Parts: sequence; structure tokens; C-alpha cells
Amino acid sequence: MRKVILQLAVSLDGYIEGPNGEYDWCLTDQDYGMSEFFKHIDSVFYGRKSYELTLSMGEPEMPGFPRLTEYVFSTTLQKVKPGAILITGDIEAVIKRIKQEPGKDIWLFGGAKLTASLLNLGLVDEISLAVHPIILGGGKPLFSNISQRISLTLTDTKTYSSGLVALTYTLA
Amino acid sequence: MRKVILQLAVSLDGYIEGPNGEYDWCLTDQDYGMSEFFKHIDSVFYGRKSYELTLSMGEPEMPGFPRLTEYVFSTTLQKVKPGAILITGDIEAVIKRIKQEPGKDIWLFGGAKLTASLLNLGLVDEISLAVHPIILGGGKPLFSNISQRISLTLTDTKTYSSGLVALTYTLA
Repeated sequence: MRKVILQLAVSLDGYIEGPNGEYDWCLTDQDYGMSEFFKHIDSVFYGRKSYELTLSMGEPEMPGFPRLTEYVFSTTLQKVKPGAILITGDIEAVIKRIKQEPGKDIWLFGGAKLTASLLNLGLVDEISLAVHPIILGGGKPLFSNISQRISLTLTDTKTYSSGLVALTYTLA
Repeated sequence: MRKVILQLAVSLDGYIEGPNGEYDWCLTDQDYGMSEFFKHIDSVFYGRKSYELTLSMGEPEMPGFPRLTEYVFSTTLQKVKPGAILITGDIEAVIKRIKQEPGKDIWLFGGAKLTASLLNLGLVDEISLAVHPIILGGGKPLFSNISQRISLTLTDTKTYSSGLVALTYTLA
């Protein structure tokens, strides 16, 4: 079955964006395992805000960035760009179906609301965080509105010369 | 000069206590580098709540736990237990003086308010977090009320078989 993988950059204090939406603190001097990660995925899950953010940013310039099937989860959007798939209904049923379909793994890109929904529904299989050597002091937290404890199993750690530490966990 | 070291257990979502003050999730099956850490410190900084918590818990049963000079930072307490030192005034001046005194390093034990004050004043020299393989979903966050970005330099990572990852940073 396809895995849903939450893969994101976070500050040491757990923010995915600074107080004004900044992500200038995200290290881009190295690949940080992303091209290897991209080999294993062919789809991405976005919440509305994350989708709109990526729309405004244009095509990503990351090396090895694959052509992804984009699923946009929103209760307010009426349509999405050509090729993308809008999910408005019962997300649990839809995601369970998508996970059963043939294909590679799925990148859960965020944001926080979609991430919380999927974590609370037990639909996330793996969490891989690029912990950056910075305290932002505010912004958008990665984890919010999680309804219960979630036990994790550490499966990998990688330490980079820049001070970034990549931590990978599976969920029970 | 003596270093002030923030040394604490945190969940992956950055809490030092669960929603009801729980710390039953803190792993105690291994030493996790604490006896080595204890060799380097002879003093501890507490905020009022952390001090009262340790009072209620009695003497710690950790192996190698040293006899520490206890500094309690509070604007409301009138006295502390015999041997402990109550700090009520200008904490910046007091801490700068203590750091100049002869002695080993100082454990900044918390809580969040004292930690924020010291981080905002640039008085913390090292942060060492025992990142536990759990998402708590709520509780007391380690970092709050930090007034600005703080750049960190990663100096050490240790991965344990239980999935605990110890991350150590110095502050500029």
C-alpha cells in the first residue's frame, strides 16, 4: 500500500513558517536527501493555503522534482488548476481509497490543518522532518490540534554539516 | 566563563509536559548521557513553578545526580528552602555575575518563562534537547515568548536505540 509521508522543514521550535510567512531560513545549499525522497513519490496532498502558496511560487526549482499528481483538500475552493484533483468530501474515505491505488508514495505537504486531520485519522505512515538550527520564536506551528498522543518509531537520522538534522519516524 | 545549558526532554512537537502536566512519556530506561552531563554542572536555575515541582518530587533518583547549588528565580516567593538562593531582582545582572564566578556549568532547568527570559537576554550558551519519539498534542511548550530569531550551531547529535535523539547546539 502507498505510504503518506509528512516531509517538511521545521525550526527547532517547531515552526514551518516564520511570523510573517517567511521561509528564508530554510537551507537550500544542499540537497538534504530531497532528490532521493522525490524518487519514491508521485503524488502530493495539499491543504488550500499550501496549494495557493505553491501556485503563487510557480514550478519548484528543486533538482529531481518529479511530476506529481496534486490532490487539493478544501471545503471552500470551487476548482483547481488543470490536472490537479480537488477533494471536498469525506477525506478519510478518499485517502484510504487513494492509498489502495497503484502508485508510489504520497507527500503530505501540509498545511497544519490537513496535517492534523490526517494525523488524527491515523492516515500518516511516516514523518520526516528537516530540523533547522534556528529558533524562529513564532509563526505557523507544524503540529496543532492533534487530539491525542501519537507514538513514533525512529527509523533514520541524518546530520548535515550545516547543522540540519533529518529525523524520520514511522507511525504505528 | 561558566556556561548556562538548557537541558531538557521534549516531545517531537516541542512540549516539556503533557496537557495535564504529565511527564510519564520521558524515557528512563537508559542514562541518555545524563551522568556525563552531571559531571559538568554544579548549579541549577529554576523558575518558581519548576522549583515547586522539584520540591514536591523530593530528591532526584538519577544516577550521578550531583549536589547542586540551586538558584530560584521568582518575583512572588518570599523564601526558599535552606541552601537554595532566591533571585528576585534584575536577573540579567545577577546571571552575568554568577557566570563570572568560579565553578562548573549551570543547568537551566526551566520553566518556559525563565527560559524565554534568558534566551531573550542572550544568556543561554548551550541547548541540549532529548527529543522523544512521541507527539503529545498539547501541554507546556519548551519555547514560548521568544522575541526574535536565534541562530544555533549544532555541535552534537546522539541517536539511541529507543528512538530518543539528543541534539546539542551552541548559541552565538
